[in-house]
Amino acid sequence: MELSIIGYDPIGAWQREATTIEELLEYRNSAGLSWINIRGLKDAAAISKLVEAFAIHPLTVEDILDAEQRPKAEEFDNYLFITFKSLKHRIDKAAGKLDLDQISLILTTDMVITFQESQSNLFEGIRRRIMNNVGKIRRAGVAYTVYAIINAVVDEYFLELDRLGNAIEVFEDRALDENDNTLLADIQRVKQALLEIRRVIRPLREGLNVIMHLDSELIAAPLEPFFKDLHDSATQVFDNVELFRELLDGVMEVHLASISNRMNKIMQVLTIIATIFIPLTFIVGVYGMNFMNMPELEYPNAYPIVWGLMILIAIGMIIFFKRRHWL
Amino acid sequence: MELSIIGYDPIGAWQREATTIEELLEYRNSAGLSWINIRGLKDAAAISKLVEAFAIHPLTVEDILDAEQRPKAEEFDNYLFITFKSLKHRIDKAAGKLDLDQISLILTTDMVITFQESQSNLFEGIRRRIMNNVGKIRRAGVAYTVYAIINAVVDEYFLELDRLGNAIEVFEDRALDENDNTLLADIQRVKQALLEIRRVIRPLREGLNVIMHLDSELIAAPLEPFFKDLHDSATQVFDNVELFRELLDGVMEVHLASISNRMNKIMQVLTIIATIFIPLTFIVGVYGMNFMNMPELEYPNAYPIVWGLMILIAIGMIIFFKRRHWL
Amino acid sequence: MELSIIGYDPIGAWQREATTIEELLEYRNSAGLSWINIRGLKDAAAISKLVEAFAIHPLTVEDILDAEQRPKAEEFDNYLFITFKSLKHRIDKAAGKLDLDQISLILTTDMVITFQESQSNLFEGIRRRIMNNVGKIRRAGVAYTVYAIINAVVDEYFLELDRLGNAIEVFEDRALDENDNTLLADIQRVKQALLEIRRVIRPLREGLNVIMHLDSELIAAPLEPFFKDLHDSATQVFDNVELFRELLDGVMEVHLASISNRMNKIMQVLTIIATIFIPLTFIVGVYGMNFMNMPELEYPNAYPIVWGLMILIAIGMIIFFKRRHWL
Amino acid sequence: MELSIIGYDPIGAWQREATTIEELLEYRNSAGLSWINIRGLKDAAAISKLVEAFAIHPLTVEDILDAEQRPKAEEFDNYLFITFKSLKHRIDKAAGKLDLDQISLILTTDMVITFQESQSNLFEGIRRRIMNNVGKIRRAGVAYTVYAIINAVVDEYFLELDRLGNAIEVFEDRALDENDNTLLADIQRVKQALLEIRRVIRPLREGLNVIMHLDSELIAAPLEPFFKDLHDSATQVFDNVELFRELLDGVMEVHLASISNRMNKIMQVLTIIATIFIPLTFIVGVYGMNFMNMPELEYPNAYPIVWGLMILIAIGMIIFFKRRHWL
Amino acid sequence: MELSIIGYDPIGAWQREATTIEELLEYRNSAGLSWINIRGLKDAAAISKLVEAFAIHPLTVEDILDAEQRPKAEEFDNYLFITFKSLKHRIDKAAGKLDLDQISLILTTDMVITFQESQSNLFEGIRRRIMNNVGKIRRAGVAYTVYAIINAVVDEYFLELDRLGNAIEVFEDRALDENDNTLLADIQRVKQALLEIRRVIRPLREGLNVIMHLDSELIAAPLEPFFKDLHDSATQVFDNVELFRELLDGVMEVHLASISNRMNKIMQVLTIIATIFIPLTFIVGVYGMNFMNMPELEYPNAYPIVWGLMILIAIGMIIFFKRRHWL
Repeated sequence: MELSIIGYDPIGAWQREATTIEELLEYRNSAGLSWINIRGLKDAAAISKLVEAFAIHPLTVEDILDAEQRPKAEEFDNYLFITFKSLKHRIDKAAGKLDLDQISLILTTDMVITFQESQSNLFEGIRRRIMNNVGKIRRAGVAYTVYAIINAVVDEYFLELDRLGNAIEVFEDRALDENDNTLLADIQRVKQALLEIRRVIRPLREGLNVIMHLDSELIAAPLEPFFKDLHDSATQVFDNVELFRELLDGVMEVHLASISNRMNKIMQVLTIIATIFIPLTFIVGVYGMNFMNMPELEYPNAYPIVWGLMILIAIGMIIFFKRRHWL
Repeated sequence: MELSIIGYDPIGAWQREATTIEELLEYRNSAGLSWINIRGLKDAAAISKLVEAFAIHPLTVEDILDAEQRPKAEEFDNYLFITFKSLKHRIDKAAGKLDLDQISLILTTDMVITFQESQSNLFEGIRRRIMNNVGKIRRAGVAYTVYAIINAVVDEYFLELDRLGNAIEVFEDRALDENDNTLLADIQRVKQALLEIRRVIRPLREGLNVIMHLDSELIAAPLEPFFKDLHDSATQVFDNVELFRELLDGVMEVHLASISNRMNKIMQVLTIIATIFIPLTFIVGVYGMNFMNMPELEYPNAYPIVWGLMILIAIGMIIFFKRRHWL
Repeated sequence: MELSIIGYDPIGAWQREATTIEELLEYRNSAGLSWINIRGLKDAAAISKLVEAFAIHPLTVEDILDAEQRPKAEEFDNYLFITFKSLKHRIDKAAGKLDLDQISLILTTDMVITFQESQSNLFEGIRRRIMNNVGKIRRAGVAYTVYAIINAVVDEYFLELDRLGNAIEVFEDRALDENDNTLLADIQRVKQALLEIRRVIRPLREGLNVIMHLDSELIAAPLEPFFKDLHDSATQVFDNVELFRELLDGVMEVHLASISNRMNKIMQVLTIIATIFIPLTFIVGVYGMNFMNMPELEYPNAYPIVWGLMILIAIGMIIFFKRRHWL
Repeated sequence: MELSIIGYDPIGAWQREATTIEELLEYRNSAGLSWINIRGLKDAAAISKLVEAFAIHPLTVEDILDAEQRPKAEEFDNYLFITFKSLKHRIDKAAGKLDLDQISLILTTDMVITFQESQSNLFEGIRRRIMNNVGKIRRAGVAYTVYAIINAVVDEYFLELDRLGNAIEVFEDRALDENDNTLLADIQRVKQALLEIRRVIRPLREGLNVIMHLDSELIAAPLEPFFKDLHDSATQVFDNVELFRELLDGVMEVHLASISNRMNKIMQVLTIIATIFIPLTFIVGVYGMNFMNMPELEYPNAYPIVWGLMILIAIGMIIFFKRRHWL
Repeated sequence: MELSIIGYDPIGAWQREATTIEELLEYRNSAGLSWINIRGLKDAAAISKLVEAFAIHPLTVEDILDAEQRPKAEEFDNYLFITFKSLKHRIDKAAGKLDLDQISLILTTDMVITFQESQSNLFEGIRRRIMNNVGKIRRAGVAYTVYAIINAVVDEYFLELDRLGNAIEVFEDRALDENDNTLLADIQRVKQALLEIRRVIRPLREGLNVIMHLDSELIAAPLEPFFKDLHDSATQVFDNVELFRELLDGVMEVHLASISNRMNKIMQVLTIIATIFIPLTFIVGVYGMNFMNMPELEYPNAYPIVWGLMILIAIGMIIFFKRRHWL
C-alpha cells in the first residue's frame, strides 16, 4: 500500500510519501488543498482508520473495498463519493481482454482522496501538472482536480476505442478471406471488450449525470461545464461502443456469407464433375459385361462409336450446366 | 409451519419458538423491537389470524400466500409490504435451474414480520448478528434489519452470478471444441437461469426504487443510503444478467461457426478425394470393355501408359485444387 | 342478446332477466347498486337505446360495438369507460390459437354495465358471490365489482399462461428429438398466442395505469390498492409473455442445432464410407482391364496380394479419419 | 389543380368549384364555416397566393409543397397545421407496395383548408355527409370536420392492415409448402408495406398527441375525446404493424425450416441409397478382375453365394440405418 | 486557414477575406451583423487568439479543435455553441463511405462565427443569399443565419439518403440474382454509411432539442418554428436511417435465401442423377464378373433383358422422385 499526499494552492505545491496512515494524516495539516492518493487496497484496517478521520459513511468504505463495485456517484452530507473503473496502461497495443482497475474518489471542500486498487501510475500526468503549475489546476479548486482525474480515465477509454476501431478495420479486410479461421474468435474477443467497456461506462455516465444535477456546493458553478463535458465524453464512448458492435455484426455476416459462398462454389464444381462421369462410367460398365450374346461387341467400329457417344454425352451435359448457370 | 420471534433492543436480545399463533402473539409484548419469522405458508388460517392482529390489508395476505406473486413493494397506512424471491441455499455448486423461494416482509414502526415459503435457513446469519450484537444491527432500528434481510437475499444472487460467470468462462473454452454435443443445451440452461433471475430482480429493483422515493417515516433518513445501496446492487445484478446473456450469445455463435467450419472442412476433403478417383475409375472402366476391336488392348506398353496417364490426371487435379486453395 | 340485471346492497340482492331494453330499464329503479350485463352485441339499436338512457358519449357506443377496439380506459364526466379482451373459457386444454372476447364496462356512481361480445359465462362466479354475499362484494361498492370483473378476466390469462408454460416445458424435452417434425410449427403457434396476449394485455395495463392516476371519485381511495393490484397482475402477465418468448427462442435454437447436428453426423459417416470404398473400387477396376500385356495378372499370388493391399488401404484410411476425429 | 370550396352551417351547405385562387377567395366570404380543398400541388405560385391571403407562415407553405414532409402537427398563432400521409384508394385488392398521398391541413377558427398531392377522392364521403347533413358534422364546428378527415385517412390504414392480415394468413398456410419459391419475396413485400405504414403512422400519432395536449381554443373541449380516439386508432395501427411483423418473422422461420428440413430428408435418402450400393459395386468389381489365379471364380456355386453375400450386406446396412433412425 | 467575414444588415452587405486574425478583428467593427467563417483548424494559436477576443470558454475552444467531438449544443453566458458534422460535397454520386467534416458554430447577439475543419464550400449558397439579399436572411437576424447554415447541412444528409435509397432499390433487384457475389459487401457498405449518419445525426437532434427548450434571448421567439423545423428534419433523417436499415436486412434475407435455394436445387438435381445411375452401374458390374458358372451369361436374350430391366429401374426411380416432388 502506497500512501502519497500532495498539498497545493495557487502559490505553491509540495508532495510527500507516507508509510502509515498516521504519518499521512500529520502531513495533511496544510492551509491549502490536499490530494491524498492510496494505491493498493489490501489493508482494510488502515483504510478504515483513514476514513474514520474524515467521518466517511461505512457504506462508502464498503464500496471502496469491494473490487466488484458498480461505478456510481453518491452525495453525503460532508463529501461526494465517486467510484468507477479505469483501464490499466498497457504496453502491448493489441485489442483484447480489458484489464480494469477500480478507482474510488472522495471530494470534500478542500481535499480529494483517491483509492486505486492497483499500482498503476495513471495519475502521474496530473501530479506533474500540479507540481509544475500547468494550466489552471492549482487555481481552480479540488473539484477541478476531480475533473482532471476522471478526464484522464475517460481518455484511456478513448485510446482503447481507437485500438478496437483499428482492429475492426483490419477485420473488415479479413472478412472476405474465407480461409481466415480465427476471425470469428477475434471478433468475439473485441465484442467482449466492448461489452466490458459498456458495462463500466454506462453507470459512470449515470454517475456524472447525478453530479451535474447535484447543486452541491462542493462543485462550484464555473466547474459545471467541465462535468457536462465529461458526461458528453462518456456518452460518446457509449455511442462508439454501440457503433462498433453493429459494425462487428456486419463484419461477421459478411465473413460467414463468404465462407458459405466459397464452400458452395467448391461443392458445386466437384458435384458437377462427378455427375458428368457417372453416366459415362455406366456405359463402360455395360460393355464390360460378359454376356455370350452382345452383338455390339463384335461390330468392328463399336469401340470408337462408344467413345464418340460418351464425348457427346459429356459435352451435352456441360452445355446443359452452362446454360443453367450451374458451372 | 415454524414460528419464531426475536425481541431486541440496543441492550439485549432474546429468541423464542412458538407452536401456535396465539403463543407467538403473547411473546410479542416486548418494549423493544421484534422480528417475527414464519417458515412454511401452508396454514392459511393461522396466517390470517396473525395478520388480523396487526391490521394487515387482505390484499397483502393474498400476496403473501400466492407463491407466484411478482416481487413488489407497497406502502399501506400502518406498514410497508415487500415481497420478493430469494435463491435457496444449494449444496451442489453446478450452475443450472434455479430454486426460488418467496419471501414476504412486513415492516411496522417496531416490528418486522417475515414469511418464508420454504424451510430455508437464509436468515440464520442475521439472527446470529442480532443475538451476538454484531455491528449496529441492534441499535439501528427495524428498517435496518429489513435492509440486512434484503441484502442477504441479494448476496445470494451475486453468488449465483459468480457460479454462472464461471460456467460461461468454461463455455468459452468449450466453444472451440466442435465435438462438444452438450454445450448448446448447457448454454440454454444457463440462459434460462439468467432469464429467471432477471424476471425476479427487475421488479425487486422497481420495489426498492419505490421504497427510496417513499418518504415514509418507517424508513428514517439515515437509512436511506442503505436502501439506495440495495437498489444499486439490484441494478448490478441486472446489468450482469444482460452482460452474461450477450456473452452466451457470442459463445454460441463461435460454437456453431466452429461446428459448421469443421463439417465443411471434412466434406471438402472427402469430396475432393472422390473427385480425383472418379475420372480414373472411368478410364479403367473403358479398358475393361469387351469389344472385339480395341486396338489399345494389344499394344504391348498400353498398360504402363494408362497407369502413367492416370497418375498424370491425379497429379493435375491435385495441383488444380491446391492452386484454387480448395485442398 | 341476453339482458340481465342484478340489484344489490349490503343487505340483499336480486337478479332478473329482461327481453327488451325497456323492461331492463324498468327493473333498474332500485335504491341500491345495479349491475347490468348485456351478452351479444348484434342489436346496435337496442344498445343505443340503453346507453342513451344513461347519457353515454357516442364515441363510447362506437367503441363498445367495434369488435376490434383496442383495450383502453377513458374517463367521461359522468362515467368511467373500460374496454378489454377476455379469453373465452375453453374445454380442450391444449395450448394454441386464442379465442378472444371483447368486454366493455361502464362504471357510474351506483351502476356497472358490462357488454359481452359472446355468450360466455365468465362472470358466473362473480354473480354467485353477489347473490350469496361472499366476501365484501356487496358492501364495497360498484367499483369493487369492477375490480372483481377485471380480476376474473386477468385470472383467465394466468390460466392460459400456465397452459402455455406447460406446453413450453414439453417443448424443451422435444427439442432434443431431431425427428420431431411438428415442433417448429407448435412453437410458432404458442408464439402467436403469446403475441396475441401481449397485444391485448399491454393496452389493458395502460388503461389500469390511467385508472390508478385518475383521482376519480368513482373509485374511492380504499379501492385504489385493488386497482394497483390489477396493474401488477397485468404487468406479471406481460413479463411472463416476454419470458416465454425468450424461452421459446432458446428451445428453437436448440432444436435447430439438434437437427443440423444429426444431419451432419449422418452425412459425415455416409461420406466416409463412400470415401473408403472409392480407391478400392478403382483398384479392382484396374485389374478388370483387358490389356494383353498386364504382368500382374499372371503372378500366381497376385489376387491375395491385391486383397491385402486393399485391406491395408482401408485400414489406413480408417486410422487417418479416426486420428482426425472425423469418424 | 382543382379548387373547391364548401360553405356550411347548421342550417345549410353549398359547394363550388373554382378555376383560380382569386375566384376561390371570393366565394369564401360566407358567414358560416368553409372547407377549401386543393387537389394537386404543382402550381406553387397559386398556393403561395392562397396562403398569403390567410397569413400562413412561410415554413408551413414549404411543408405543404414538400412531398417528402414527415407527418406532424404544429400550432401557430392563428392556425393549426397538420400534415400526414394517406393511402390512395386502390382498385386491386392485393397487398403490396403502398401508394401514399400527402395531405396537409390548416385549421382556423372558421375554416379548414386541405391540400391533396394527388387527385384522389378520399374526402368524397365527408363532402356528402356535409351536403346531406348526416350526423352532427354541420353542427360540430370545423375542428370536427378535421376529425372526420383524419378519421377517413386512418380508416384507410385499417383497411390496408386487413388486407395485409389476410395476406399473412395465406402465408401461414404457404409456409409449410417447401416448393413455394415466391413466399420469401412476398413476405418481404408485405414487410416493406408495414415499414412504410409505421414510418408514416408513428409521426402522425405524435402529431395527434401534440394536438391532444395543445389546449388550443381551435379545438373545443367537447371535441377532445374525438382526437383522443384518433390517437388510440393510430396506436392500434402501430401495434398491429408490430404484431404483423413478428408474425411474418415466425412465418419466415417456419418456411426456411421447412425448406431446409425437406432438403435434408432428400439428401439423406439419396445418400443412403448410394451408401448401400457402394460396397456391393466394390464386390462385383472384385470378381470382374482378370487374375489368372482366382480360385473363387471356379467354384461352381460361387455366383449364387456372392449374390447371397451382397443381399446380406444390403439388408445388414438397411437394418443398421433403420436402427439409427437414419432411414 | 482561410478567414472571411461578411457584414450585413437589412440595407446592405459586404464581404472581406483576411490573412491574419488581427486583420479579421479589425474588419468586424461594423454596426450591423457579422458572420465570420474560418476554414481549416490547424493553427490552434490563431484560433485561440480569435476566441479570446470574444470571451469564449476554454472548453469550447477544445471542442472546436477536437475533430472527433460529438455533435452537441451548449449555452454559455454570452453565447450559444453548436458543433456538428456535415457531409462533404462529393462529385461521384455512388453511395458508400461517408466523408464527414466538423462544423462548429458560435452565436452571439450580433455575430455568428463558423469553424470548418476542411476547405469545403458548403456555405457558398448562404453567402450568396446574404450578398444578393435573397429571402429574409438579411432582415431576420443572426440566429436565422444559424438556421440557414444548419439547414444547408441537414439538406446534404437528405441528398445522401436519396442516394442510399436509390442504392437500396437497386439492391432489391439484385437480391434475386443468386450469382451476385458483391451484393453482401455492398449492403454492408451502405449499412456502415447509415450507422455513421445515425451516429452524427442523433446527437445533432439532441442538440436542436436543447436549443428549442433553451429560452435563450439569442434565439428570438419568431425564429423558434425554424429550429423546430430543423429538429423535425433531423428526426426524419433518423427515421429514414432506421427504415433503410430494416429494408437492407430484408434485402439480405431474400438474397441469402435465393443463394441457398439455388444451391439446394442444383445439389438436388445432381444427387438424383447420381442416385439413378448407382443401381444401374451395380447391375452392369454384376454381369462383368468372371465366374465360371453364371447361367444368365449364356441365355441368348440375357443382354436385351438386362437393358430392359435397367430402363425399368431408371423409369421407376424417376417416377418415385417425381411423385415425392423431389425432381
